[in-house]
Amino acid sequence: MRLAIDSPTTVAETARELVASATTTDPDQHLEQLCVNVIRGLAMDAVQKANSGHPGMPLGIADAACVLWDRFLKHHPADPNWPNRDRFVLSAGHASMLLYSLLHLTGYDLSLDDIKQFRQLQSRTPGHPEYGLTPGVETTTGPLGQGISNAVGMAMAEQVLAARFNQPGYPVVDHMTYAIVSDGDLMEGISYEVASLAGHLQLGKLIVLYDSNHISIDGSTDLTFTENIEQRFAACGWHVIKVNGHNRQEVAWAIEQARQVNNRPSMIVCDTIIGYGSPNRQGTAKSHGEPLGGDEVLLTKEALGLPTDKPFFVPDEVYTHMRRAHAERAGQQQSWESMMLRYREVYPDLAELWDTMQSGQLPDDWSAVLPTWDTDAKAIATRAASGTAINALAKVLPGLLGGSADMNQSNQTLVKGEEAIQAERFDGRNLYYGVREHAMGGIMNGIALHGGLLPYGGTFLVFSDYMRPAIRMAALMSLQVVYVFTHDSIGVGEDGPTHQPIEHVPALRVIPNLFVMRPADATETVQAWRVALERRNGPTALILTRQGLPVLNRNGTAYGRFGPLASAEGVLRGGYVLYSAPEPQAVLIATGSEVALALQAALLLEADGMAVRVVSMPCCELFDQQDQDYRDAVLLPSVTARVAVEAAASFGWQRYVGSQGRIVGIDTFGVSAPGAEVFRYYGLTAERVAATVKDVVHAGG
Amino acid sequence: MRLAIDSPTTVAETARELVASATTTDPDQHLEQLCVNVIRGLAMDAVQKANSGHPGMPLGIADAACVLWDRFLKHHPADPNWPNRDRFVLSAGHASMLLYSLLHLTGYDLSLDDIKQFRQLQSRTPGHPEYGLTPGVETTTGPLGQGISNAVGMAMAEQVLAARFNQPGYPVVDHMTYAIVSDGDLMEGISYEVASLAGHLQLGKLIVLYDSNHISIDGSTDLTFTENIEQRFAACGWHVIKVNGHNRQEVAWAIEQARQVNNRPSMIVCDTIIGYGSPNRQGTAKSHGEPLGGDEVLLTKEALGLPTDKPFFVPDEVYTHMRRAHAERAGQQQSWESMMLRYREVYPDLAELWDTMQSGQLPDDWSAVLPTWDTDAKAIATRAASGTAINALAKVLPGLLGGSADMNQSNQTLVKGEEAIQAERFDGRNLYYGVREHAMGGIMNGIALHGGLLPYGGTFLVFSDYMRPAIRMAALMSLQVVYVFTHDSIGVGEDGPTHQPIEHVPALRVIPNLFVMRPADATETVQAWRVALERRNGPTALILTRQGLPVLNRNGTAYGRFGPLASAEGVLRGGYVLYSAPEPQAVLIATGSEVALALQAALLLEADGMAVRVVSMPCCELFDQQDQDYRDAVLLPSVTARVAVEAAASFGWQRYVGSQGRIVGIDTFGVSAPGAEVFRYYGLTAERVAATVKDVVHAGG
Repeated sequence: MRLAIDSPTTVAETARELVASATTTDPDQHLEQLCVNVIRGLAMDAVQKANSGHPGMPLGIADAACVLWDRFLKHHPADPNWPNRDRFVLSAGHASMLLYSLLHLTGYDLSLDDIKQFRQLQSRTPGHPEYGLTPGVETTTGPLGQGISNAVGMAMAEQVLAARFNQPGYPVVDHMTYAIVSDGDLMEGISYEVASLAGHLQLGKLIVLYDSNHISIDGSTDLTFTENIEQRFAACGWHVIKVNGHNRQEVAWAIEQARQVNNRPSMIVCDTIIGYGSPNRQGTAKSHGEPLGGDEVLLTKEALGLPTDKPFFVPDEVYTHMRRAHAERAGQQQSWESMMLRYREVYPDLAELWDTMQSGQLPDDWSAVLPTWDTDAKAIATRAASGTAINALAKVLPGLLGGSADMNQSNQTLVKGEEAIQAERFDGRNLYYGVREHAMGGIMNGIALHGGLLPYGGTFLVFSDYMRPAIRMAALMSLQVVYVFTHDSIGVGEDGPTHQPIEHVPALRVIPNLFVMRPADATETVQAWRVALERRNGPTALILTRQGLPVLNRNGTAYGRFGPLASAEGVLRGGYVLYSAPEPQAVLIATGSEVALALQAALLLEADGMAVRVVSMPCCELFDQQDQDYRDAVLLPSVTARVAVEAAASFGWQRYVGSQGRIVGIDTFGVSAPGAEVFRYYGLTAERVAATVKDVVHAGG
Repeated sequence: MRLAIDSPTTVAETARELVASATTTDPDQHLEQLCVNVIRGLAMDAVQKANSGHPGMPLGIADAACVLWDRFLKHHPADPNWPNRDRFVLSAGHASMLLYSLLHLTGYDLSLDDIKQFRQLQSRTPGHPEYGLTPGVETTTGPLGQGISNAVGMAMAEQVLAARFNQPGYPVVDHMTYAIVSDGDLMEGISYEVASLAGHLQLGKLIVLYDSNHISIDGSTDLTFTENIEQRFAACGWHVIKVNGHNRQEVAWAIEQARQVNNRPSMIVCDTIIGYGSPNRQGTAKSHGEPLGGDEVLLTKEALGLPTDKPFFVPDEVYTHMRRAHAERAGQQQSWESMMLRYREVYPDLAELWDTMQSGQLPDDWSAVLPTWDTDAKAIATRAASGTAINALAKVLPGLLGGSADMNQSNQTLVKGEEAIQAERFDGRNLYYGVREHAMGGIMNGIALHGGLLPYGGTFLVFSDYMRPAIRMAALMSLQVVYVFTHDSIGVGEDGPTHQPIEHVPALRVIPNLFVMRPADATETVQAWRVALERRNGPTALILTRQGLPVLNRNGTAYGRFGPLASAEGVLRGGYVLYSAPEPQAVLIATGSEVALALQAALLLEADGMAVRVVSMPCCELFDQQDQDYRDAVLLPSVTARVAVEAAASFGWQRYVGSQGRIVGIDTFGVSAPGAEVFRYYGLTAERVAATVKDVVHAGG
């Protein structure tokens, strides 16, 4: 058989010839055709009933999807969390009814009644697939390009875990990752980023089926998308095959070929007709994103040979076939479980490690390794403290796995003494994402979704914008992912406004379910890592300085007139009283590098006879979760003279400083100059903070 | 000469053979070499003096850059704004010293003293090039991938304007767009997006030089970036040549070839050595982003034949050569000006149009075309009102040019009766960006930077995240760009949480210099467009509904007990009193679809005998710019019972409602269900708003 990576078209022709010359002797072909059409019928009916949704793609890609699920996918509908199952990602989430149909027909806990509730309030069949809501849905998709990036992350996780656990005769981790993508997925920049990295890493167990239907929402892809997809993926080191997506034998042949290519990810370009079967809408953008209409549904059912008087039609033989096929493969889980019993005996240590990593639980004594600093330590950047923490944590948290988008040194994200993860060398601990922040975000989500690993990833805070859509997905899916965002303010200095975050901290705070932590010194940084690691149900963004910060003296000796600074364990409550006069006239609230500034201002004010309190507020989201008593004890409702200090846009601080308060922040873009000068230029000085506090107190705040 | 697109390596070999076989007879070669080394010297010295910056790339790409500027670039340093100049984009903005050196040597208003102030406060030589700050800098670069997207936008603008203005014998608009990019630029997803679109549009006058030095910050690109660049760009329909970036004859040959290819953009892969000339650092990541060190600078100068005792060395013959070459080409501007005098006589109407579009001024009577609606009109989605406005405006604003990231119908961004802009058909008005939001953002910036056109572009609000880095650049550069963000809330309905914006409106509000406008009805939408068009110094994001909204009755008839609703011209002040009882007990503040909700709540409260005021606040940024008297007159400082209503994260509203106020918003992700149900699910109802107002009033707010 001829397989020429550089000329996928030739391959497709080969495939077609092969199929054409083959005698279709499979007695299941008629039944499989019925299964495909039943999937189409369910998709049409559900969209029609909801009067909302996307029928075109389920109709078009049902053949290929059915082949994949029916003949290849290794999974167990009764145990959707079996660790060694194949992963399936519907990157084009708008085709959700395709997935729901497959889940229902193959026996997942998703009933026909669920499907009839498509897109209704609190149903398990929302408009786009949602992870955690519907059994068998491996990731939430809809925003294009995210799914394929998740799939790449899953395939990477598979390789990393296989390198750690597999032993001769014991393929503990050995599964495929499949994805179905649309032209929209492949137009998004993130898809190119992850394709380039997947090719570099030679992810041979990743197989992507591209539903090439030549139609996007605006019309024909000829309007805007005429690149040579096969050549593009070949350029990224992929194995590429092109097939007729409605010829199931061809699709099966292509998947079989792809499974045999172990040193490259595979792209199967499936030429399809969007809205297949719909006499008046197939092949048109009109079939993409709106119901076909009752009449057209009937015409389509007629064309497909489905009964027109039975909505949500599923004959028994379809259930029998789809579930029998899977019952057969469910046996694979049983074999795997048996193997694991033997593995536990032969490799008890590895088996224990497996259990630990699968559980995602932290070992009992994990926090004992957290680094501490002498209070007379010289200034330490919080990014450096984070790097020290990562290196300590890596020793006790085998699942911790991270890297950076080409700034491993700057972000201090490397685990020293560990290797870079590369093709055929997945036993390292350090990931090199390249200058691909968005890919990193999506891949981290995939790693977290896969299970067994806890991903972290770094870039400059200002470039968090590049990965924002993936951050949102992590928050939406409640994934435990840790972002190491360094160079967190104008403190970046000379690189100037393009590299100085202004709006990024508040812009991240506004994402639901994301913790944004901006620690004040090395000690708080370690506590911030602690919060991030103990938080199982959502992502955490660590906001860290480029520049050195003093390690605050928390050893019990007095800081100013009124006593010592509080323990950094206050970080665990989001915000805490770092230092306070007994009856403060004013409350200073600060985060990160501005906490030291606030303390200096407090000393200046003390010298002028004023009594003030300094609150360190590394994590607003966590603070807001504390009970009212605690929050009042920190912020003192009776003290309305409050000043917040943060080298960032002031937006949002009003909720803590109130109507009489003031905010010392920066509401314009930055400037290029040495960092210390930039701080002075924007008035982020102890003197100005102190003056602002006086103003507020004198104004009767 | 052989030029095989599918085998660029062969092309490179051809080029090399060609050059090797050629006799270098050019007497200027020695002088050009000196110019190149002087550029290198300036870059090293400036970085060393600042003790901060990126020497590696200026050293590496100086040969190719000097060839481009010295032999090809058509520009006039004395008139940096000459409309028909070639555009040059340094996409890899960290190589800023390369650009500053070229600007200085060729005679732009940038002195050696300016260069000695590299990276210092308020200098004209900031860490990364900044548009508007330094003459000759065509765009602000630094965030990777942005520059190449701007270049694509400039090349598109050139073609659009050429199609409008050029006449036989009158090439009014006829210039090249050049860009220098780094591996970092090409790893970013946006670069693939724009490359795909540039290839589709066959932008033959775009030439990109890729500084292929095999080094990124983390080390060798072998760590992560091993795709076949030549094949990738060929896949996108580009003309690709690979050359030795240190062989200036080869580079010149390649540029000459590229200039002759008119139906494809060109990618010239320049193999270079990063930190060229530095004995101990060349070819290493160490040379990328930090000063070489004083000793190494001296060693490098020795190696390059530069005097070691003269920092910032520029011999007279270098000035003479670099400026003479350009003086010669400046004659091109004079020829063009002469041609334009004749053009004005032969094509007076076109010349007048040219002046209008170049000025960017709105015609006197432009606002007369703005659509109005009867107050008894049926519900109209604000996206539909925006579409109507666009179609009216397109008639009187010839420079208005827009499209969508594959949702022209949904975003209502099409100008009816106008053609799609396609390859060789640039006389249309409608752009099809494909599912490439980030590309759209960067390209719009390039179009705005080019001049002569006013770009707008649409996508769903939730996908504004995908283009956020480009939005930031528009705001940073104060570009007039209009974003048409539709489907602006949970009102999206069935598509569910992946498609329902929650955090996006506040996340956009926090970007400095961006106007975020969320109009309440069709009439306000038109006024929002008016603000966006009259705003010359920054971008505006229009936040528009999917669902229909009532057209508020502003015709003078009473709305409730207290009188008619105010004119929508209040939008021009950002926020205004829409409806008010004479002495209100409470102030309701709302935006967009929630304004009607607030009005309904006001009626409910009136019925209960309460006096309330409803403020429509479509643009907080504009409102904040009004004087204190106006703001107080709207918000009434004495009334502390305030409630803000917005179907979005509540973050940030505290600054208007104050300590006693309340916010009716949504601080979790959305759900999939029909839109009206989702509004009820989240308590965004008139009843709940009214109840909240009562609570606040009763609490003594």
